[in-house]
Amino acid sequence: MILHDDRPHEECGVFGIWGTEGVDAAHAVYYGLTKGMGLVSEVFHPEVLQKLKGNIGIGHVRYSTAGASCIENAQPFSLNYAKGTLALAHNGNVINAKDMKDELSKEGAVFGGTSDSEVIAYSIARERMNTASIEEAAINVAKRLRGGYALLIMSPQKLIGVRDPLGLKPLCLGKKGDSYILASESSAITAVDGELIRDIAPGETVVITKDGIQSDTKLVSSKKAHCIFEYIYFARLDSRMDNISVYDARIKGGMALAKRYPVDADVVTGVPESGLTAAVGYSKYSGIPFIPAFNKNSYVGRTFIKPTQSERASAVHMKLSVIESVVKDKRIVLIDDSIVRGTTIAGLINMMRKAGAKEVHVRISSPAFLYPCFYGTDVPDNSQLIASEHSTEQIRVQIGADSLEYMHIEDFEQMTGDLEICKACFDGKYPV
Amino acid sequence: MILHDDRPHEECGVFGIWGTEGVDAAHAVYYGLTKGMGLVSEVFHPEVLQKLKGNIGIGHVRYSTAGASCIENAQPFSLNYAKGTLALAHNGNVINAKDMKDELSKEGAVFGGTSDSEVIAYSIARERMNTASIEEAAINVAKRLRGGYALLIMSPQKLIGVRDPLGLKPLCLGKKGDSYILASESSAITAVDGELIRDIAPGETVVITKDGIQSDTKLVSSKKAHCIFEYIYFARLDSRMDNISVYDARIKGGMALAKRYPVDADVVTGVPESGLTAAVGYSKYSGIPFIPAFNKNSYVGRTFIKPTQSERASAVHMKLSVIESVVKDKRIVLIDDSIVRGTTIAGLINMMRKAGAKEVHVRISSPAFLYPCFYGTDVPDNSQLIASEHSTEQIRVQIGADSLEYMHIEDFEQMTGDLEICKACFDGKYPV
Amino acid sequence: MILHDDRPHEECGVFGIWGTEGVDAAHAVYYGLTKGMGLVSEVFHPEVLQKLKGNIGIGHVRYSTAGASCIENAQPFSLNYAKGTLALAHNGNVINAKDMKDELSKEGAVFGGTSDSEVIAYSIARERMNTASIEEAAINVAKRLRGGYALLIMSPQKLIGVRDPLGLKPLCLGKKGDSYILASESSAITAVDGELIRDIAPGETVVITKDGIQSDTKLVSSKKAHCIFEYIYFARLDSRMDNISVYDARIKGGMALAKRYPVDADVVTGVPESGLTAAVGYSKYSGIPFIPAFNKNSYVGRTFIKPTQSERASAVHMKLSVIESVVKDKRIVLIDDSIVRGTTIAGLINMMRKAGAKEVHVRISSPAFLYPCFYGTDVPDNSQLIASEHSTEQIRVQIGADSLEYMHIEDFEQMTGDLEICKACFDGKYPV
Amino acid sequence: MILHDDRPHEECGVFGIWGTEGVDAAHAVYYGLTKGMGLVSEVFHPEVLQKLKGNIGIGHVRYSTAGASCIENAQPFSLNYAKGTLALAHNGNVINAKDMKDELSKEGAVFGGTSDSEVIAYSIARERMNTASIEEAAINVAKRLRGGYALLIMSPQKLIGVRDPLGLKPLCLGKKGDSYILASESSAITAVDGELIRDIAPGETVVITKDGIQSDTKLVSSKKAHCIFEYIYFARLDSRMDNISVYDARIKGGMALAKRYPVDADVVTGVPESGLTAAVGYSKYSGIPFIPAFNKNSYVGRTFIKPTQSERASAVHMKLSVIESVVKDKRIVLIDDSIVRGTTIAGLINMMRKAGAKEVHVRISSPAFLYPCFYGTDVPDNSQLIASEHSTEQIRVQIGADSLEYMHIEDFEQMTGDLEICKACFDGKYPV
Repeated sequence: MILHDDRPHEECGVFGIWGTEGVDAAHAVYYGLTKGMGLVSEVFHPEVLQKLKGNIGIGHVRYSTAGASCIENAQPFSLNYAKGTLALAHNGNVINAKDMKDELSKEGAVFGGTSDSEVIAYSIARERMNTASIEEAAINVAKRLRGGYALLIMSPQKLIGVRDPLGLKPLCLGKKGDSYILASESSAITAVDGELIRDIAPGETVVITKDGIQSDTKLVSSKKAHCIFEYIYFARLDSRMDNISVYDARIKGGMALAKRYPVDADVVTGVPESGLTAAVGYSKYSGIPFIPAFNKNSYVGRTFIKPTQSERASAVHMKLSVIESVVKDKRIVLIDDSIVRGTTIAGLINMMRKAGAKEVHVRISSPAFLYPCFYGTDVPDNSQLIASEHSTEQIRVQIGADSLEYMHIEDFEQMTGDLEICKACFDGKYPV
Repeated sequence: MILHDDRPHEECGVFGIWGTEGVDAAHAVYYGLTKGMGLVSEVFHPEVLQKLKGNIGIGHVRYSTAGASCIENAQPFSLNYAKGTLALAHNGNVINAKDMKDELSKEGAVFGGTSDSEVIAYSIARERMNTASIEEAAINVAKRLRGGYALLIMSPQKLIGVRDPLGLKPLCLGKKGDSYILASESSAITAVDGELIRDIAPGETVVITKDGIQSDTKLVSSKKAHCIFEYIYFARLDSRMDNISVYDARIKGGMALAKRYPVDADVVTGVPESGLTAAVGYSKYSGIPFIPAFNKNSYVGRTFIKPTQSERASAVHMKLSVIESVVKDKRIVLIDDSIVRGTTIAGLINMMRKAGAKEVHVRISSPAFLYPCFYGTDVPDNSQLIASEHSTEQIRVQIGADSLEYMHIEDFEQMTGDLEICKACFDGKYPV
Repeated sequence: MILHDDRPHEECGVFGIWGTEGVDAAHAVYYGLTKGMGLVSEVFHPEVLQKLKGNIGIGHVRYSTAGASCIENAQPFSLNYAKGTLALAHNGNVINAKDMKDELSKEGAVFGGTSDSEVIAYSIARERMNTASIEEAAINVAKRLRGGYALLIMSPQKLIGVRDPLGLKPLCLGKKGDSYILASESSAITAVDGELIRDIAPGETVVITKDGIQSDTKLVSSKKAHCIFEYIYFARLDSRMDNISVYDARIKGGMALAKRYPVDADVVTGVPESGLTAAVGYSKYSGIPFIPAFNKNSYVGRTFIKPTQSERASAVHMKLSVIESVVKDKRIVLIDDSIVRGTTIAGLINMMRKAGAKEVHVRISSPAFLYPCFYGTDVPDNSQLIASEHSTEQIRVQIGADSLEYMHIEDFEQMTGDLEICKACFDGKYPV
Repeated sequence: MILHDDRPHEECGVFGIWGTEGVDAAHAVYYGLTKGMGLVSEVFHPEVLQKLKGNIGIGHVRYSTAGASCIENAQPFSLNYAKGTLALAHNGNVINAKDMKDELSKEGAVFGGTSDSEVIAYSIARERMNTASIEEAAINVAKRLRGGYALLIMSPQKLIGVRDPLGLKPLCLGKKGDSYILASESSAITAVDGELIRDIAPGETVVITKDGIQSDTKLVSSKKAHCIFEYIYFARLDSRMDNISVYDARIKGGMALAKRYPVDADVVTGVPESGLTAAVGYSKYSGIPFIPAFNKNSYVGRTFIKPTQSERASAVHMKLSVIESVVKDKRIVLIDDSIVRGTTIAGLINMMRKAGAKEVHVRISSPAFLYPCFYGTDVPDNSQLIASEHSTEQIRVQIGADSLEYMHIEDFEQMTGDLEICKACFDGKYPV
């Protein structure tokens, strides 16, 4: 079957480097964005900007399901103003960006495009007229921003990183030789052979110059709300965020599922790639062997084949086939990390039945998500969500499973311990 | 020989259309820019913008010897502000654009790029906050502009054209069916099968809407200063500007040369393409037959050959060969429209001598230009100009001619009659 | 680490279709070659040929480490001769092709290129002059061919398949609607939503026309020698060849390894993708849990990054990172399907040690291969093979493993049962 | 108007170089073909082949109105046979190539493609088996060829040129440093800064090796028949063929027209580019001044515009506009070199009338051509020729001219003196 990935997508990140003499910042940013964030080549458009003989650079990569690749919205955004030039890239959403823009427009501001980046950069440039430094301007503007974000700001001499006070979006600091790196994911730092130093704390602002790193905590608040989605879906398996290994969190999620929803079965398997790690966790707790059951066909790039319009609209298209020997006459536990429309998992279950599976028990390593996200996570709207209109039993019937269970919301703490998380999309309790 | 065209280059123009329902404005602008302005395909980058379901569009085309194709400077420039959107394209130079930008920056303005277009558009958007209409804002801003320019402004409902008060830059109005066209050259109008209505007068502003054309004369002044270069070099042979045919002006220039600097010769010929029309004029007055003496080799596009870096730097490269039968044992009058470094004409004279020419008398259909232009004409700087450091006799020796004469500055009036012209690059008398 | 795949490569196959009215043969062949043979998009160049209003088509796909993409050698090869036109594609090597060519050349034959395909096609065209049918000509020529091959021949009315008498190379027959398919791998048939009918028997010739399928057994001999490499390395996991599931064969290979070379360990894992299935088999027999330990970075296509020359030379480049939680403080069994130069596995073991693995025991799911292949398998030459110069113990030390064992050659029968196989590259006993 | 050039097209040529150590033959051939044969970049596909560390190379360039760019027919054609390799490029048509191919096929020959080049090369390779040298084989094969041709043959050590006995097709010898060049046109030699040594005589074979040039005259016959079309249309203005300057021939043609068909007029002009030189000749004899009357719009390459299918079918599309001042109230003599369908000239006459021309007298610098060419000239078939169905008076009315005259066939001798020419397309008297 052709698998059109129907789960939520964000897959967005920033990367910046403050390099010493001789560092090719543009290349480093490029590789950090493409190799370190684990994205399929077809679906992203890394945009890189560098300054000052190449030793400072920032970049942004975004995966957009809508596919609207609008030049005006391209990040990073750079501008010229009385104090010189300034560039900005950000990850996340600023809820009140439109309001800020309208306000500025009323005062006579003009904008070349329609992106939030431009609004934030513009605001910082404005603020800079009345402040002693660019970081002070950035902090003052950040105070007015609502939502989850990680900002990278580049001035001719400085690389600045700002993480939102709740810590909704990740940002971490790394080092390679004498160069400093700021990136959404630690894997992007290791991808360029750098090493992770630490996470930028929620609300922390770091300023990197030739004199080293300075940290500012003016934005820090007592309340935290790390986005649980990063651990469930978005982050790379080998990333470490806020001191928690993404891999470990997923293994523990699978174990919690096995503990709460056990099943008598012969094989545990997962939907590639999203469900595999939780499946290993389920296997570990239950003792049922984990065996990969699907064979992925090669991804054939667009250079060679011309997909139909509908295939292209969906950026991810691949073909999975089930390995008959794994499932024939077996009772299967099938793990995935989410169900959106349900069509993908229904297709896979159907393939398994045709290949002779006796039973297929589905376990989902996250709760059904029911509420919109306002902090930058690209959750499908309600009309696309099977869970918003149907009960779990209805979904089970619709996808053709013998049993279906979602992770219990209370089990999150088994994944992330005492980390303060935002799980508003599951329970509607928004942190701000 | 390989001819690296060493004469001044501007080859820049604007084109806009206000179309009725069903008009594909983008296409019309594209064809007007490319077919109507007589440019070689390799060297220009037309930029077209359209709005409102496609029935209004503006575009700009520029040939730049420097080759700096900077995205930030791309025209047309569009912006969003409190009153909506606005786009602008312009031809010419605004001398005080930098000052205007600095002033705006001091007031807190931020700019995405570094182009004059952005400064002008920004200023109009600002001004629009305090005026009743976009055209009023444009006129108010134009009052502050110094230099020669033609502006095209597109708002959701209007197409506006503004010509500088001195008339340094051309702008004309045309019609095709029920659509209206504003263009730098009349030939761009005829190129899309439209017809020329009239020139926009120096200082005139026209506003085209669904209710027709309105003309405003607030900027009109008594002083005029049409750029003589348009007639000598830039404009297409079949254009008509300010009621003067470019072809006729050049024929008359050649005739004036023949009258003032006659020579006893067998053949009159011209350097293709720039010197051919003046050569016909010289022939007409002198009675010496005009015979083309050079064979142009095909222009071979970059798709097929990979020119060396130096060839590419010069955007025009072609190979001329002399037709031996035309020049052998003959006394030749060779006409060109200018001499910059002198290397081109020296090469051609050398070829003629090798092919057996007895005498080669060079006549240049413009005076030696000695002063910089501040109004938007891309004149080579002094260091490139052979005339800035050498006498006519020295140049004659250097290029190997038997005689050399430049058009006398007083003969311009034979070309353009009583049109008030700017000839500051020849005599240093700047109109503003 | 960047993994430059250093195992033997063939990844070559043929695909042909005899379609009924309205079948777009070219498309079907294209998709069969690209989607069904599991190749990475960067490294193959499918060549497709179709005839007769598109209802017959053949194609060939080849992965070449040498990267010599010579137009003269492109398959399929088509020619014109007295009886019309004929096209041929083949998989495998014909040992005596050079001799046949020399012989033909002596008789005055001329060749446009240097490929074996041209020699075989030429020979068939020659033979056709003295035979009643194209299939008879093909069979007569096949009698003279030495080596392992699968031939597809297309004439205006017929699609013909010939498999070598020993069955060294695979060929199978499928159906989709009323169309018939011949393909190297069954997965290529299912990839175009066709269904496998049966394998073409060693020495069998099938002729597909509008009257259906005719089978000829003139070439059939009693001796068989199926290439064991297809099961170990080349074939897709979900292919079925000569009635044996490739997946099952690999699972059984892993089980045989576990039985003969047990080890006391905590985790069984495999080198992606080549070692994963045997690792599942090892886990199954030993009871030690199978856990994927490596995270593959996305393959970044050449559209976006510009690899260095050395990266490009190696057609497969990806980055593997080890998941620390899986290996830390654990005793690991690491399975791969072969060792060529040993650099890849040495790198992976080193990564595991750095991530905290206590022990790493390597098990290779094939014997050390020591002899060249003359039947079309692209085995590295001796100079590249670590096993040709070193003992197993020496290799163990060099790659840094705690223990190292290769599959015992007698265990092949556990993989493929009583199928007569060629394992000459391991034991030097060539079937012909 | 958009001018779809409707005159006959051949624009085909060969170029070969025998270079000394260090000569980049491929480049030289490329430049000779593209720069020296005066072709527009869009419409040709030069194919170049080089051998022996690059010091021998041959190439072929063809302009085809049909646009059938078939890989199988690509020249040069190379083959491998018992004596090694051999490559061939040719200009012209071999009337009996099909017969030769059928004969060879009957003897068992197989061909990869369908081109005449392959047949000739194959025949030479065959013949080579029974002869002492490649040149002897080439001569023996040439004896059997019917038609007009120039052959270039490249073996590992030799560059061979063969011109047909009648001299229908041109071929000349040049030198650059110590390298030798064979080319269809002398302008291709001068284009690479070489110098013309001499024409290859009709029926002459030259063999270029490291020992110099050897000439063979076995094919030379007493009868000659140089194609008059080369002088009228095809050759570049600055070429010299069989000791006659193409430019001079055209001037004399124009003079002959003026003498035989005088007219009382104010201006002589020509259709660019084809009619300009004859127009200068008409002016020279008549004393009526020659003035260019058309302004050519730039050729806009396909990179930028997407012409409609019909525009693309015709490979040359440009826009001519008439310069009003030249023709208004004037009596015009308009010269072109041929009339095919008559649509082009009708359009131009119409433009002139609209611009105010009082009279337009058309003079064509060749007779009406009425017979097919069998020697390689791409003459339109009868159905396209206005002259095949209409009298001169009917054509005059149809194109809207005040008078119309074609060159008288007897005046050819004024163009080419006592050169024996083939003018069969005008009078039906074929030389073979």
